[in-house]
Amino acid sequence: MTCADAAPPVVDAAIVDLLGALAYAQLSGFDRLAEDARLAPTLGRRADMARLAAQQVQHFGRLAQRLADGGVDVGTAMQPFVTAVEAFHALTVPSTWLESVVKAYVGDGLAADFYREVATLVDADTRSLIDDVLAEEPRAAFAVGEVSAAVRAQPAVAGRLALWARRLVGEAVSQAQHVLAERESLLRLLMQGSGDLAAVAALTGRLTARHDDRLRALGLGGS
Amino acid sequence: MTCADAAPPVVDAAIVDLLGALAYAQLSGFDRLAEDARLAPTLGRRADMARLAAQQVQHFGRLAQRLADGGVDVGTAMQPFVTAVEAFHALTVPSTWLESVVKAYVGDGLAADFYREVATLVDADTRSLIDDVLAEEPRAAFAVGEVSAAVRAQPAVAGRLALWARRLVGEAVSQAQHVLAERESLLRLLMQGSGDLAAVAALTGRLTARHDDRLRALGLGGS
Repeated sequence: MTCADAAPPVVDAAIVDLLGALAYAQLSGFDRLAEDARLAPTLGRRADMARLAAQQVQHFGRLAQRLADGGVDVGTAMQPFVTAVEAFHALTVPSTWLESVVKAYVGDGLAADFYREVATLVDADTRSLIDDVLAEEPRAAFAVGEVSAAVRAQPAVAGRLALWARRLVGEAVSQAQHVLAERESLLRLLMQGSGDLAAVAALTGRLTARHDDRLRALGLGGS
Repeated sequence: MTCADAAPPVVDAAIVDLLGALAYAQLSGFDRLAEDARLAPTLGRRADMARLAAQQVQHFGRLAQRLADGGVDVGTAMQPFVTAVEAFHALTVPSTWLESVVKAYVGDGLAADFYREVATLVDADTRSLIDDVLAEEPRAAFAVGEVSAAVRAQPAVAGRLALWARRLVGEAVSQAQHVLAERESLLRLLMQGSGDLAAVAALTGRLTARHDDRLRALGLGGS
């Protein structure tokens, strides 16, 4: 309990918001990955993407359980974040299998980084849940082999995929800003470290830097 | 090992076919349940359907692993069954949430019954895999509450849903017959008990009887 003792209601609302936003991101991620699996060139690749989708549901289940333990319905907690998450997906519909693989990898990586960042800001129970989720083996590892092979075979695709990856992170940051503008409790949670908006900017900076590392792992350079 | 000692190649081909057919049924079931989840009237129901879809992927993973242990690629093993399974789904696209719930429940139940039936015909390793899959808690239990409540609130839906359920099992049997006409190894596996086609007819009869029990559990009467 970092801040809960000082101002329990605010932190509680923030934790419900945080868990609700993450839960809807997972449920919606499942939905989109399941759809993207159809773009797979082989049944084996389709199964890889299906496995990734199934893991989103497992994470969703953990978040829903944590909310239920606190007497909160996950559906209610997710509702405020449906619009922003759906807007993100509507603006980033992959048009090829490789774009869907990059989206899966980038989305999975950003989510994991974000979990790591917020783990330092939340109460012990929520932190333990986050540790559980992060303890699972790397989820979108298949993407590295898939994209690297495509880039080696056809170097021209690298530029297009790098732009795509940049668009993904741009749209994610943009939707996150919309959410924070409307959910004061979440904004206050994220500002806990320094107490001002610079903390949120620094968080965005760290997430973007790790995103660039992931792009390099995919053979897409990085900015 | 029931029959493997007497005629190993035939049984091996049949087991590969059986696991391949079940694996594609699970992967495709995942795909369709994920799509049907979008019909859900609430986020909570959508999550129920997503969980069911995720379980298909877990079962798929077990079947794929068992094939891999035998040196067989799951993609190759599934290929012969893609057409029949996709034909089944193309002919049974739910048009409402309740139709999708009935399809999930009926499909899940039929699959479980079929697993139980073939468990008596296969080698010890495959039987142990089947036991693992069946040991999981009832998967589509949420369907009973969902459909019963709808039928109580609006009794007129019962007749339409009962017809829908009958169509589902009819199309499933029809596609299974196409598959058996083309895959002699599978047909021979299923005939093992009595050595003639009557065994397959009896199996179909048992599966249909249990299907009727499930319809009654949903409050849809049964034939």
